[in-house]
Amino acid sequence: MDGGTTSTAPADAPNASPAPLSPHPDRLLPSDPAQRAIARRLYESVRDLPLLSPHGHVDPATLAADDPFPDPAALLVTPDHYVTRLLHAHGVPLHELGLPDRDGAPVAPPREVWRAFCSHWHHFLGTASRQWIESELHDVLGVRVQPSAATADALYDELVAKLAEPGMRPRALYESFNLEVLATTDDPADDLRHHRALAADPSWSGRVIPTFRPDRYLDATSSDWPAALDRLAEASGIDTGSYQGLVRALEARRDFFRENGATATDHSAPDPEMAFLPEADAARLFDAVRKGEAAPEGARLLSRQLLGENARMAAEDGLVMALHTGSCRNHHTPTFARYGPDTGHDIPTSTEFTRALRPMLERFGTHPRFQAVVFTLDETTFSRELAPLAGFYPAMYLGAPWWFLDAPRAMRRFRDAVTETAGFHRTSGFIDDTRGFCSIPARHDTARRVDAGHLAGLVAEHVLSEEDAAQVLRDLNDSLPRKAFRL
Amino acid sequence: MDGGTTSTAPADAPNASPAPLSPHPDRLLPSDPAQRAIARRLYESVRDLPLLSPHGHVDPATLAADDPFPDPAALLVTPDHYVTRLLHAHGVPLHELGLPDRDGAPVAPPREVWRAFCSHWHHFLGTASRQWIESELHDVLGVRVQPSAATADALYDELVAKLAEPGMRPRALYESFNLEVLATTDDPADDLRHHRALAADPSWSGRVIPTFRPDRYLDATSSDWPAALDRLAEASGIDTGSYQGLVRALEARRDFFRENGATATDHSAPDPEMAFLPEADAARLFDAVRKGEAAPEGARLLSRQLLGENARMAAEDGLVMALHTGSCRNHHTPTFARYGPDTGHDIPTSTEFTRALRPMLERFGTHPRFQAVVFTLDETTFSRELAPLAGFYPAMYLGAPWWFLDAPRAMRRFRDAVTETAGFHRTSGFIDDTRGFCSIPARHDTARRVDAGHLAGLVAEHVLSEEDAAQVLRDLNDSLPRKAFRL
Amino acid sequence: MDGGTTSTAPADAPNASPAPLSPHPDRLLPSDPAQRAIARRLYESVRDLPLLSPHGHVDPATLAADDPFPDPAALLVTPDHYVTRLLHAHGVPLHELGLPDRDGAPVAPPREVWRAFCSHWHHFLGTASRQWIESELHDVLGVRVQPSAATADALYDELVAKLAEPGMRPRALYESFNLEVLATTDDPADDLRHHRALAADPSWSGRVIPTFRPDRYLDATSSDWPAALDRLAEASGIDTGSYQGLVRALEARRDFFRENGATATDHSAPDPEMAFLPEADAARLFDAVRKGEAAPEGARLLSRQLLGENARMAAEDGLVMALHTGSCRNHHTPTFARYGPDTGHDIPTSTEFTRALRPMLERFGTHPRFQAVVFTLDETTFSRELAPLAGFYPAMYLGAPWWFLDAPRAMRRFRDAVTETAGFHRTSGFIDDTRGFCSIPARHDTARRVDAGHLAGLVAEHVLSEEDAAQVLRDLNDSLPRKAFRL
Repeated sequence: MDGGTTSTAPADAPNASPAPLSPHPDRLLPSDPAQRAIARRLYESVRDLPLLSPHGHVDPATLAADDPFPDPAALLVTPDHYVTRLLHAHGVPLHELGLPDRDGAPVAPPREVWRAFCSHWHHFLGTASRQWIESELHDVLGVRVQPSAATADALYDELVAKLAEPGMRPRALYESFNLEVLATTDDPADDLRHHRALAADPSWSGRVIPTFRPDRYLDATSSDWPAALDRLAEASGIDTGSYQGLVRALEARRDFFRENGATATDHSAPDPEMAFLPEADAARLFDAVRKGEAAPEGARLLSRQLLGENARMAAEDGLVMALHTGSCRNHHTPTFARYGPDTGHDIPTSTEFTRALRPMLERFGTHPRFQAVVFTLDETTFSRELAPLAGFYPAMYLGAPWWFLDAPRAMRRFRDAVTETAGFHRTSGFIDDTRGFCSIPARHDTARRVDAGHLAGLVAEHVLSEEDAAQVLRDLNDSLPRKAFRL
Repeated sequence: MDGGTTSTAPADAPNASPAPLSPHPDRLLPSDPAQRAIARRLYESVRDLPLLSPHGHVDPATLAADDPFPDPAALLVTPDHYVTRLLHAHGVPLHELGLPDRDGAPVAPPREVWRAFCSHWHHFLGTASRQWIESELHDVLGVRVQPSAATADALYDELVAKLAEPGMRPRALYESFNLEVLATTDDPADDLRHHRALAADPSWSGRVIPTFRPDRYLDATSSDWPAALDRLAEASGIDTGSYQGLVRALEARRDFFRENGATATDHSAPDPEMAFLPEADAARLFDAVRKGEAAPEGARLLSRQLLGENARMAAEDGLVMALHTGSCRNHHTPTFARYGPDTGHDIPTSTEFTRALRPMLERFGTHPRFQAVVFTLDETTFSRELAPLAGFYPAMYLGAPWWFLDAPRAMRRFRDAVTETAGFHRTSGFIDDTRGFCSIPARHDTARRVDAGHLAGLVAEHVLSEEDAAQVLRDLNDSLPRKAFRL
Repeated sequence: MDGGTTSTAPADAPNASPAPLSPHPDRLLPSDPAQRAIARRLYESVRDLPLLSPHGHVDPATLAADDPFPDPAALLVTPDHYVTRLLHAHGVPLHELGLPDRDGAPVAPPREVWRAFCSHWHHFLGTASRQWIESELHDVLGVRVQPSAATADALYDELVAKLAEPGMRPRALYESFNLEVLATTDDPADDLRHHRALAADPSWSGRVIPTFRPDRYLDATSSDWPAALDRLAEASGIDTGSYQGLVRALEARRDFFRENGATATDHSAPDPEMAFLPEADAARLFDAVRKGEAAPEGARLLSRQLLGENARMAAEDGLVMALHTGSCRNHHTPTFARYGPDTGHDIPTSTEFTRALRPMLERFGTHPRFQAVVFTLDETTFSRELAPLAGFYPAMYLGAPWWFLDAPRAMRRFRDAVTETAGFHRTSGFIDDTRGFCSIPARHDTARRVDAGHLAGLVAEHVLSEEDAAQVLRDLNDSLPRKAFRL
């Protein structure tokens, strides 16, 4: 019987003494004895490096306000759609997980949310979420027993008390996590008050930077688009009633974000295709879509044109363009109607890059100022399209495994698929992409372990030396994210 | 030199003493010493569990009649299109493998079929079929030498004698295989006489249940469709000359199948897309297709509508809907014309699920009675589409690796690709999908070994405890197939 | 610290004593101790077998002229688009790598090209190119230090001297590489003077055979097509102004190639689809395209028709048809305009085979004389399409991993994906596909190591015996390439 992570009996089994929670020091390192010794040394060499988080979804208000986290359900369950989706698949309605229900079902109180989570804990066996949460519980929150139906209430009380400690406040955690920089994801109309408050606070030495995420202003197919343009006009003081106006407003807000520390923009779209129409054509198309006189293909083309316009801006202002495309958002309309977006049913789709990125790369692929980081949810494109592209175009970095793919085995497949074509130095370094502030160290630690293990495999097969592997691992955690995101 | 499975010299090599056949007790377990010890313990813990076979193609007459199998060619070669296709690829015409030829070539007698198989045995090295057949020959049939041109005749005689023993009859084998339930695949017009005979036989304690497979009644693109509707009308006593009539006839036959033990329906289609037209539109479309007045797209749409109608029925009657889509059937028309269907040239195609399943999941994805198990031949969809879908929708189980993917390395890729997103408990458990009754234990044993090995890898990397791994492995072989197929 | 391959400090780091270059004898073999011992024995058993190179891009003039290679840049950097593309991705313009620039930038002299390469050597860590070049430098050229900015000049001088030695001439290397046959890739209008000169040279005992590569004569979508037809008419003495004329000219050149030793034709196309129109329709289509009166789809259809016509010819003359499809050539138009083709930006695309190959396989899939070897850049098709097709059709071999996939991890994925369905004996054996004559032994050695390791894994998991594995490995390096390419 293994000495590390120990058992969680199923919820319905009697549970004499609660199973201990003790993540093994060698977890996620390869079990092959030759590889493990090397992997341990490599991992140790980067374990304590500062964390660079160039892409994620932490609310900047969390750090600006520095309020304590109220309870474990609010910290670990309700806001984490990786967790709520799997509980939902096992039959727990989302309002029983703390999500407000527009149909009026009562929202469960946090203790009940926590009980639901704990009683389904064994259903997370083998998932990335379980590994992150085990680390958070153990390393950040000091928990020493596994969640289960039997331990749920005691754990709840223990965690409520723990979260009230001063060392558990967001700013104190930022320090203890050894974060060097944390990028948030922000609406172009945002006034960035929290970022500015933090920057102006002499008692705060961290670095929290915004990221310009203009999806809703570019998506001309959405019924919310006209209202979004109005909001942007208000925020920028520029009339967005024309194509040129919208472009100028976006440029103005990009400038505002840059002045407040942004180094990148972030883009979600159904696919990565961009259009580069002559300005007069774009203006005519904009007018037709605004008046509701364009066919659906017209609105899609305009969206692609606006994405392309952001690429052009990036080549001018130097903000790195991060592309996160290929998700079918809000797949289950009834759930979207009741619980809103980001509730666990954004489903990946097959994505094509070779032809789709060509117009962008024809224009900017060798541009000295332009830089893009391209992410995917479709791992078939790693070896077939993205590694060959990043292995030629100096302006394109290949983004680390993202979302459903930011888990140990998927990360290994990523390295296996891309390294032989593109090497390590055309990849972006890890991004945590998290909404859960406390999961940041666990996620980076997972990536460091997996990359250490991958490199140890190459060393054990004499593909590279341990000294070179150590340098590569350091680059992945230091120089590469700095370069890819111009941190 | 390894002590286990030993060599098969190529057919043309001189062969002094025949190579022994002795499958190694540790076969298919990981070779890493840390992993193998764990894998052995895990495998031992489920090795002797009863077999649940919720999907396969065994003829129920085999068990109802309980006649002995006549010879090894009829048992292992002629009916197994995994075997005949590879022999065909190596140049053996199908009539030399026992398949009747409509062009009139003489069908080889069984001894010659067996010789052809044995002399090509080395061409199966590394295939799943070879591993299954080695287990069948050794464990079920007591064979101790490898097939080869030199051993073919002696083996043939040995096996003919063996198959005449009473313990080799199908019912005796059912007992010795430790089968608990065996689902067959049946035509909706079938009278299920064999299932009823078995159920009524006081000397028989097994459980053989039918599965409702209505493909030919739903495929309105086929020239055989009108005749199929007539047959269904006859079996159901309901006029199938209208859309409503066809729907009522299908419902009646589903009821008949349920009354005779069915828990599931099974559907093969080129792709998993369904339509949900208003009934009046569907009725009009049906009439047009029946009269030959619809365009080909109309017939395709009607097929999708009829598949969707079965989903609606499933939400009402609770039969689990198994989807096996994505095969291009009868790829080589000349072979189809000479030898008929299921002759080894059904070739998988790229399959899309995220958009295709959306109409079904919008309607029934959170329905309390509806349940679907979704299989694929396109492994790229495991991480990209199927695990995310099964990780959100309570009504959808992710089917185990199927057909070309039900082999050890493919099964490992399946677990690697899906577990981090969906865990283990949103997957269906193994299905053997076999036409070869005697291959059932070997196929389940392979799956148990591979899952034990996969879990041992996770234990050795401290991702989960050995106790949890043992519980997961038991669930995969017991509670999960029961739940996924409502056994 | 590992005893094998040792470190390359990054270019910007101070480098006291240069890192030694000493490829480990066990490189690329699995690190698992049980597997490695088996893998070593298997590898040893084929290490010294003669090299069969049925597909590659070595210039036959190299061997006919037998001139010494001038310098290491011309040998290892400038002509190798695997190398130049990654240097380009790291910011080195192609004219600084020795490529003539039509825009007039000065082409760097070879010593500077070599410096650029050496100073970026660490960016190749983990790539297939690095492993090949390490072997070439060490085994062929006697180098004992790693390239780096610090060692570049000394290495350059050392290599220039080395390349002047008589044993470094191409014919001497051919002997010391133990090459048995080397296929080149040639234009149908080529007069094959170098092949004929070699064949007529009594002092030369090697075998250098041409391959018929008619892409430019089949691609009716290209603006160069009319000129190509004129060239073919001149070479064949047959008027190519009609469809029938073009067909006859192609047939005549195929005959000429066969008379000069060719055993195969080779075809690159955007996708593998072929057309088989009635001759009169094809002739009309040809006339319309020639006159510029056809729509773009017409030119595409004609290209497919001409490819299909080559399949028909192959069924008659017995030349093996190698298909290398699925690349988007010259992705970056500005680079193509400045530096021409084959400059590192041919990018793979998703490729479909099941439906696309059907017309060809319907006609010739069981033809006794026809034979095709199908390659892909889209590894998703290995398990889904190509292994099932090669596992049924006797006329189709599954080509070894190619281009971006001819690297150790990708080769392992290939074997994992195809063997369980198609076995080993429906695959083609390794092809090196190289432009770099001196990389041939390193590439074959890599494949032998990887296949030995893969087979060792199967032996260690008791899937096959070591004796069988040794026979399979010999077949992969001997009988299979001979059969697949009719050498």
